[in-house]
Amino acid sequence: MSTPYKRLDKDNAAVLLVDHQAGLLSLVRDIDPDKFKNNVLALANLAKYFKLPTILTTSFETGPNGPLVPELKALFPDAPYIARPGQINAWDNEDFVKAIKATGKKQLIIAGVVTEVCVAFPALSALAEGFEVFVVTDASGTFNEITRDAAWDRMSANGAQLMNWFGVACELHRDWRNDIEGLGALFSNHIPDYRNLFTSYNALTGAK
Amino acid sequence: MSTPYKRLDKDNAAVLLVDHQAGLLSLVRDIDPDKFKNNVLALANLAKYFKLPTILTTSFETGPNGPLVPELKALFPDAPYIARPGQINAWDNEDFVKAIKATGKKQLIIAGVVTEVCVAFPALSALAEGFEVFVVTDASGTFNEITRDAAWDRMSANGAQLMNWFGVACELHRDWRNDIEGLGALFSNHIPDYRNLFTSYNALTGAK
Amino acid sequence: MSTPYKRLDKDNAAVLLVDHQAGLLSLVRDIDPDKFKNNVLALANLAKYFKLPTILTTSFETGPNGPLVPELKALFPDAPYIARPGQINAWDNEDFVKAIKATGKKQLIIAGVVTEVCVAFPALSALAEGFEVFVVTDASGTFNEITRDAAWDRMSANGAQLMNWFGVACELHRDWRNDIEGLGALFSNHIPDYRNLFTSYNALTGAK
Amino acid sequence: MSTPYKRLDKDNAAVLLVDHQAGLLSLVRDIDPDKFKNNVLALANLAKYFKLPTILTTSFETGPNGPLVPELKALFPDAPYIARPGQINAWDNEDFVKAIKATGKKQLIIAGVVTEVCVAFPALSALAEGFEVFVVTDASGTFNEITRDAAWDRMSANGAQLMNWFGVACELHRDWRNDIEGLGALFSNHIPDYRNLFTSYNALTGAK
Amino acid sequence: MSTPYKRLDKDNAAVLLVDHQAGLLSLVRDIDPDKFKNNVLALANLAKYFKLPTILTTSFETGPNGPLVPELKALFPDAPYIARPGQINAWDNEDFVKAIKATGKKQLIIAGVVTEVCVAFPALSALAEGFEVFVVTDASGTFNEITRDAAWDRMSANGAQLMNWFGVACELHRDWRNDIEGLGALFSNHIPDYRNLFTSYNALTGAK
Amino acid sequence: MSTPYKRLDKDNAAVLLVDHQAGLLSLVRDIDPDKFKNNVLALANLAKYFKLPTILTTSFETGPNGPLVPELKALFPDAPYIARPGQINAWDNEDFVKAIKATGKKQLIIAGVVTEVCVAFPALSALAEGFEVFVVTDASGTFNEITRDAAWDRMSANGAQLMNWFGVACELHRDWRNDIEGLGALFSNHIPDYRNLFTSYNALTGAK
Amino acid sequence: MSTPYKRLDKDNAAVLLVDHQAGLLSLVRDIDPDKFKNNVLALANLAKYFKLPTILTTSFETGPNGPLVPELKALFPDAPYIARPGQINAWDNEDFVKAIKATGKKQLIIAGVVTEVCVAFPALSALAEGFEVFVVTDASGTFNEITRDAAWDRMSANGAQLMNWFGVACELHRDWRNDIEGLGALFSNHIPDYRNLFTSYNALTGAK
Amino acid sequence: MSTPYKRLDKDNAAVLLVDHQAGLLSLVRDIDPDKFKNNVLALANLAKYFKLPTILTTSFETGPNGPLVPELKALFPDAPYIARPGQINAWDNEDFVKAIKATGKKQLIIAGVVTEVCVAFPALSALAEGFEVFVVTDASGTFNEITRDAAWDRMSANGAQLMNWFGVACELHRDWRNDIEGLGALFSNHIPDYRNLFTSYNALTGAK
Repeated sequence: MSTPYKRLDKDNAAVLLVDHQAGLLSLVRDIDPDKFKNNVLALANLAKYFKLPTILTTSFETGPNGPLVPELKALFPDAPYIARPGQINAWDNEDFVKAIKATGKKQLIIAGVVTEVCVAFPALSALAEGFEVFVVTDASGTFNEITRDAAWDRMSANGAQLMNWFGVACELHRDWRNDIEGLGALFSNHIPDYRNLFTSYNALTGAK
Repeated sequence: MSTPYKRLDKDNAAVLLVDHQAGLLSLVRDIDPDKFKNNVLALANLAKYFKLPTILTTSFETGPNGPLVPELKALFPDAPYIARPGQINAWDNEDFVKAIKATGKKQLIIAGVVTEVCVAFPALSALAEGFEVFVVTDASGTFNEITRDAAWDRMSANGAQLMNWFGVACELHRDWRNDIEGLGALFSNHIPDYRNLFTSYNALTGAK
Repeated sequence: MSTPYKRLDKDNAAVLLVDHQAGLLSLVRDIDPDKFKNNVLALANLAKYFKLPTILTTSFETGPNGPLVPELKALFPDAPYIARPGQINAWDNEDFVKAIKATGKKQLIIAGVVTEVCVAFPALSALAEGFEVFVVTDASGTFNEITRDAAWDRMSANGAQLMNWFGVACELHRDWRNDIEGLGALFSNHIPDYRNLFTSYNALTGAK
Repeated sequence: MSTPYKRLDKDNAAVLLVDHQAGLLSLVRDIDPDKFKNNVLALANLAKYFKLPTILTTSFETGPNGPLVPELKALFPDAPYIARPGQINAWDNEDFVKAIKATGKKQLIIAGVVTEVCVAFPALSALAEGFEVFVVTDASGTFNEITRDAAWDRMSANGAQLMNWFGVACELHRDWRNDIEGLGALFSNHIPDYRNLFTSYNALTGAK
Repeated sequence: MSTPYKRLDKDNAAVLLVDHQAGLLSLVRDIDPDKFKNNVLALANLAKYFKLPTILTTSFETGPNGPLVPELKALFPDAPYIARPGQINAWDNEDFVKAIKATGKKQLIIAGVVTEVCVAFPALSALAEGFEVFVVTDASGTFNEITRDAAWDRMSANGAQLMNWFGVACELHRDWRNDIEGLGALFSNHIPDYRNLFTSYNALTGAK
Repeated sequence: MSTPYKRLDKDNAAVLLVDHQAGLLSLVRDIDPDKFKNNVLALANLAKYFKLPTILTTSFETGPNGPLVPELKALFPDAPYIARPGQINAWDNEDFVKAIKATGKKQLIIAGVVTEVCVAFPALSALAEGFEVFVVTDASGTFNEITRDAAWDRMSANGAQLMNWFGVACELHRDWRNDIEGLGALFSNHIPDYRNLFTSYNALTGAK
Repeated sequence: MSTPYKRLDKDNAAVLLVDHQAGLLSLVRDIDPDKFKNNVLALANLAKYFKLPTILTTSFETGPNGPLVPELKALFPDAPYIARPGQINAWDNEDFVKAIKATGKKQLIIAGVVTEVCVAFPALSALAEGFEVFVVTDASGTFNEITRDAAWDRMSANGAQLMNWFGVACELHRDWRNDIEGLGALFSNHIPDYRNLFTSYNALTGAK
Repeated sequence: MSTPYKRLDKDNAAVLLVDHQAGLLSLVRDIDPDKFKNNVLALANLAKYFKLPTILTTSFETGPNGPLVPELKALFPDAPYIARPGQINAWDNEDFVKAIKATGKKQLIIAGVVTEVCVAFPALSALAEGFEVFVVTDASGTFNEITRDAAWDRMSANGAQLMNWFGVACELHRDWRNDIEGLGALFSNHIPDYRNLFTSYNALTGAK
């Protein structure tokens, strides 16, 4: 009962973005496409903001699954990019695991499409190898709620921690004073309600 | 039965954006904020794209209702902008009606916050004066579904036509050949599923 | 197309509150009880605020239907109060109709429990006698959504206008300048999101 | 505007129960089976209670559609019972229409399975012949909400009035004093929340 | 009140299938893809079964919108097939309207993707030219329920009749005796609950 | 299996209200604002009623997050009030933890906005230090259900107990006889259905 | 992994029905009242059918909570009936626990109103004393889904098994051959879909 | 933490299809019938595709429960087929367990109707005997969501892994290169969105 909780640490965390591909995205129906797009980009921008090592991977991107969405490619031009030749579980791909281990991080923040396969399989594999795994539920999507709930249950029962991108950002940042403007900009860009708060506040206080 | 249908005509239509203010937006709960923001910007961009005269109006923007969202201000720097001193129904404001009549258009495309007041009141007033009114339902928001459904019923019973921004764009454009790239860009920027279709298509055909 | 729209006029409107009784309220399941209670009280306070003649009526209040909720009784100590001896349609009660006609108003704002009976029956009767009828949908409740939707359709097809309490308040008030504080207080007391806007605004501007 | 509303009159109304058959009921998925069974029996008991002429009809009951549910057969042993040899629209069956006309009633209360066929077809036919039609929406069922909403729209646009069994009972009864115990029993048997009110009331007042 | 209802007549009806294209289908999110595919094929098979003249049309099928789904092509190898060069409203394409007029039918059964554009635009145009229009709501799809409800309202207000494929089949067939096996097969193939009824019935009666 | 369950004890419990601020409340969309406001005030009144030590904390209340809602401030004028200068996890603020430890209580009842951050972070920290943690789920709010469900899973997996304010009140009170009127008033003020029971009961028994 | 599962055994199980009182039932809003009534009676009838010792208890039944629903009283005239003088957790009442221990059973099947209090408190207490606890989720009700889900999580985390009445019946019965007619009657009386299967089957086979 | 995860292995897995019978299917209301039929057939086809030993069992198939759906019979003409004479838990049937043990597999993939009985009972029994159990949630159905969620909780708490048919297929296949066409065909036949991706891809690349 008195062990410290598994808390995200920006010096010990890496981000894995798995199979956010233009074709596969048409399969995602447990979350609205406008919201899902926003969540994925929010996660990507937070990875960027916290300078977390980020690894991209895709499955058969020259086939019907389609290419990685261009926004992700553009955000991480220098990130390891593993176009898997066929492995469904990204963890079965040696280059992917090597890239992860090369970061030296023990905490893995994972999101992808679809949740029960592209997220759950590497999450379970990583847990089995002793990594701490944080699933970004709202930047991961799948066919429907039945499928999602089952996938969450499987991952949670194996020790994965279920989070959302906002929680990840807050847990990594720890203290607003580390950079108020930076975190504020991230939230303003990806949470319309927060942006409105900033807009009204700035109008009244004369802030920019 | 054989009268032509009331069809939007880009040479005869104006757009009214009513009270999309930072404070009032916190009242909107019948549509997800990510989706709502996207819809409002899509409507604004389509007004821009089709060069429709556009009129902005706000209610008490220096008070708790908050300022117009900055994106709209930025998109229409030269549009008539009526900061109403107190009239709840924008149609009760002479400057607003004058601005509309100055456009010479007989078709009014209206969206706003909240649906049953800021949209419905001027819509009903405009119908009573013989305008054709097209309500952009998905760029208008309110407290909940009960409130929305009642507002729709009242407007529809008075002759307003209920549309969404995508339908408005398609009815105005008439024929893809008028400008494939322009309309395609509008859709790609505001419909993630459409963007994915473009991405996959371009990847396979080598198009940009 | 150019007839003026049927617009609420505070000098020509009366409010009918039908059968908001402690027992009958347990039948209401198309709207959450916290929200419903708030809506009913908001409508009552609105009637009070605009000094609209208000008429209370109940059905068998000494039996299982239970007494009128005490808040309504307390708000309108001097209002006509018709405890109907048995008529289900309040309009079948002569005293009720007399009380309405005594107000001299031609616009009737109706809410009650349950929607398809206690609201719809007098609404249809009033329409048949030439009154303008405004149903306050969110201060009226019934068994479920199927029942509600059918009741709305019947009333709307007969010419009733479907509104919510907020829309009623706004249409009656016309212009914020008629009394900013009064209307603001009504909204602040019954719309938590609006109250929060006031709270933040006041904190920043030093207003009370 | 001043014509009397179409109000159910127990001396001028007949009830049509169309195709509530054991097989067809498995198609009903827009309403929970427990609730649907209760609603259908409530409507049947209401017809019985008000001594309304009631007509039963079935479609192919010796085939997969299955027999009429036994409760309805038992409740109306002497009612006209038209086992249609093949007509899908019951109104296309001469015996059915003859049975209706034999009642001499001009108001038809219809419920059945499935809504868009077994209810809508005879409802539209009856309207076309000048009958007043009252659809009991909650004792009629179909595949899903899309199907139901479309069926309602078609019937309402043709002049059918959408009601529920409770509204029908109340409009027929007019005044509780006509028979408090009888109506109370109907409600207590088919509305659990109402039964609870009676139970608590009786416990406190010593009534039975 | 006594005009005959607008009833589908298999000798006077044609079917229009508008833009059921592989790319556009990814936009449909108001109905589950498994169900939607089934509904569209059911409608197509119904058109085939009743030998209704059927017209296919697509929008930009060599671009991101993608080709017509192959099942429809295969079912109607000899049907008029209008690949529109750019018109968004199919009715703006002369070949499409000519093909319709060539059938000599006055009742048009329309389904397509997306509802508020590809269905609503030609539906409104056809109504304006005096056709009777029957929208197959469950074989038409769009972005979400808000969009769908607004589109239905617009079409219904202009006189379109909202139906589902099952209702269309039943209204066309009129009497089971016209062909029990054929209609039964259509239902068994596209309504799992109905198929189960047949399966159980056949098992008990020794029917095939 | 036979260890006593972790049961709330009014002599060993403290209440933590975290970041119920006017601005942040606009982010809460997994629960209706009327209901949420009622739940938060119910929890506050419960803390008051049971005389539980209560600790208030806010995050950046002079910025866009806005001030603590005034009702909470007014209810606990003498409670420790920690306006955190930047720590996102309140547990990272020494004053906050000191205030908790100063109470000498080992059971912490936590609610706040948003669930996955302002509630989950201190809950997990407290669990790690050996406190018993009871999360008041219905007085805590966040962006949507996905976010809420993930936050619940994370807290529950770490040993937090998920409750609602009503359950907390009942578990603390143990026996109605400890004070029937006091508990009854709490329920009557915050549960409209319960209030109606009291109203009907009192009307029949002549109780006040 | 190889311990036998905790399986209900009709020789070792007792049923606890907690606070199904006429007043408290108006608080239940996470399940439709028609369905809930049916589920509670189904559970009661199964207790009867399997001759399980059954214990009834109520809380303040002479006050606003109201009397036990009469159907339960009538079904178990000789069952221990503990009208608790004030204890909220029934397990705090010595008579209740004595009655349970007097049965000599180690498996407790519990249902009640409301779930998080009247069910969860005695369930947790019983688990702590080494009983096996089976919660009948669909014969237990509470305010809303948030409250229900939290209560389930708390009980499940402590080792309670979540079931429904149908599962309880099936697990107790083990083998249809033990009494086909009896179990069939239970299902036919409480599952309309099952009754329809029997009706159709009997019609075709000539069974009664 | 570092034990390998329980991963499906096509050389060590068998499939159990329990009670997918024509009558029982009418009880399934937690998942749409079109989708459910598709999921069950997808699971069956994947069992076939991966050549997993498959065992069929039914309960009283000559009675109202009805025969196994013919598609399953046809797909597995040579599979062990245990028509249970009465055991509700298939695991209580010796032939069923023998058939399973005869496969020599230690991983059991289970689906059936209804979830909390026909799936949960054998799943719990198998877990107790040391098998690894994988529940195919979307090919299993029951009365409603309350029932489903409770059943999932019970199985998950005992160590069952909750999956969907797509996840099962992916985990068994491991690598697309093992057979791209075969897996692609399975997905194209049972996931309309995937089929559309193939259709568009093939159209652009000239693939078949």
